[in-house]
Amino acid sequence: MVDYEVFELGDIQLRLGATLRDAKLAYKTYGTLAEDKNNAIVYPTWYSGQHYDNEWLIGDGMALDPAKYFIIVPNMLGNGLSSSPSNTPPPYDRSRFPKVTVYDNVSVQHRLVTEKFGIEKLALVTGWSMGAGQTYQWAVSYPEMVTRILPFCGSAKTAEHNIVFLEGVKAALTADAAWKGGWYDEPPTTGLRAVGRVYAGWGLSQAFYWQRLYTRPPMAYSSLEDFLVAFWEGFFLVKDANNLLTMLWTWQNGDISQTPGFDGDYQRALASITAKAFVMPAEKDLYFPPEDEEFAVGHMPNAELRVIPGVWGHFAGGGVNPVDTKFIDDNLKELLAS
Amino acid sequence: MVDYEVFELGDIQLRLGATLRDAKLAYKTYGTLAEDKNNAIVYPTWYSGQHYDNEWLIGDGMALDPAKYFIIVPNMLGNGLSSSPSNTPPPYDRSRFPKVTVYDNVSVQHRLVTEKFGIEKLALVTGWSMGAGQTYQWAVSYPEMVTRILPFCGSAKTAEHNIVFLEGVKAALTADAAWKGGWYDEPPTTGLRAVGRVYAGWGLSQAFYWQRLYTRPPMAYSSLEDFLVAFWEGFFLVKDANNLLTMLWTWQNGDISQTPGFDGDYQRALASITAKAFVMPAEKDLYFPPEDEEFAVGHMPNAELRVIPGVWGHFAGGGVNPVDTKFIDDNLKELLAS
Repeated sequence: MVDYEVFELGDIQLRLGATLRDAKLAYKTYGTLAEDKNNAIVYPTWYSGQHYDNEWLIGDGMALDPAKYFIIVPNMLGNGLSSSPSNTPPPYDRSRFPKVTVYDNVSVQHRLVTEKFGIEKLALVTGWSMGAGQTYQWAVSYPEMVTRILPFCGSAKTAEHNIVFLEGVKAALTADAAWKGGWYDEPPTTGLRAVGRVYAGWGLSQAFYWQRLYTRPPMAYSSLEDFLVAFWEGFFLVKDANNLLTMLWTWQNGDISQTPGFDGDYQRALASITAKAFVMPAEKDLYFPPEDEEFAVGHMPNAELRVIPGVWGHFAGGGVNPVDTKFIDDNLKELLAS
Repeated sequence: MVDYEVFELGDIQLRLGATLRDAKLAYKTYGTLAEDKNNAIVYPTWYSGQHYDNEWLIGDGMALDPAKYFIIVPNMLGNGLSSSPSNTPPPYDRSRFPKVTVYDNVSVQHRLVTEKFGIEKLALVTGWSMGAGQTYQWAVSYPEMVTRILPFCGSAKTAEHNIVFLEGVKAALTADAAWKGGWYDEPPTTGLRAVGRVYAGWGLSQAFYWQRLYTRPPMAYSSLEDFLVAFWEGFFLVKDANNLLTMLWTWQNGDISQTPGFDGDYQRALASITAKAFVMPAEKDLYFPPEDEEFAVGHMPNAELRVIPGVWGHFAGGGVNPVDTKFIDDNLKELLAS
């Protein structure tokens, strides 16, 4: 059963020149668009996540309450639901799927929001990780539309260390000869499992492992090796390798200063963000460290840094730990009320 | 030209049961042993390092001054000079090389120090990374011999997060089918390069990359990609895959509380370290974080935590950054004078 809608984009020209024909943007909405169309929230997906992976932050009594807001979750290009290597017909299929930027993602999301729903103002854009990158991009691409942003555990420009971390992920995946340069018929499972093991050290903090929180609810894995196999290998084993590589390129090349008009000037691009912003890195995030977001906030005219405390690292924003979820939700409520 | 000596160990029984026959301990000494034999320092090697990689911390006017001290640098088992998968004849060759513990390494180093040189007291044991692990092990295995220790950027027990980081390294290497379960005739270069890329994000801090210090002296690489290829891939490409995996196992299983008599009680093992200790993690080390060493120092009767400040992460202890080297050397001088 398909639980989402597809917005037909037609032929879209991407920032780097390729044309993606009959492109599709898969999305799901929650709640009802108000008559004045002023209750819309855009909440993009993260690396390999799909709309249902965002649902933990949506619910009755939460900040993103469908009784109050019209919440649109657009699936990122490459995530397997929107146009992706895994679902695009030849000749742009699989390894030939074109390079997609965060800018491109937000452009097509903008078309959905305006053409499909006729929305002119967004109450909020928010998202985790690459979703945070898209959140920033919304505020830069469409400043007149975006009232508030709350990017959590992500950045407006992918830092070099983050690029390097992803090089490790990519190298582990593509070291598997079964990957065949992307022209596999059977999934490169050794490489996908290796990605899980490489990622495992990055996704959660040193202190998370020291405290063995993976053995405790809500995770409750039986051992470290069980956590590595059941959670991390399992996480990536079900994903398509080319899709992962497409989104990885998008992530590595995320940079609001590549938006037309900013000529790579990151500080000027940050300064253009007029939306009221709560910027929320996680205290021990190993690839989106708080210091990078402190820098960003220092150049944004209407932003506040609010660090998510604790030891869950990047996964503080993943919806697994109730304490972190409450912290994010409380801040969303405060921002939406302001 | 061979610039080191080999101590013939004969047949040694390892902690986990295997017997390594005709085992060899390669070492190099610097300076002259005093008549009273009280000026000896042991300075073990690190993951994949060999004795010459330790020489940056030895020199005229430095703490480890060969004019004053007799400095013994024993090569770790598995490092390609001491008995290793790459140099051991069948049947214990290559993939069959037995599991070696840090305890085993220190046991054979103890034989060298006592049987070959007749030394009864060590002025100091010091080392970087896995060398720090061996340093701790010396203090636990031979408390009556070890006067002072200065472990830097390493730990007495490998933390779970560190084990996970190494799982990523291992998975990237073994994802290359050319590895052939260790029975390769040609090196698995794709896997070795992948190890370089995985390691690149861990070895140095987020801030190091943010500041692009790899473009500045003493590194002076021309771009991020140049740093990844020329430094990181180059670093691992020349190493033997089975040797790397042997040392990786040693690292993952480093734990002073596995020393006979401690029954896995880490705090009791730490409490047994009577040597005067300066414990020196690096401020932004991503796999030996200062908080772990703060814990260790809290359970050692005669230890002080001295964090190496700055952004070089684990490589603060690698001898590349002169500021960090001076910091370590100054502390070595202070400890040796006390």
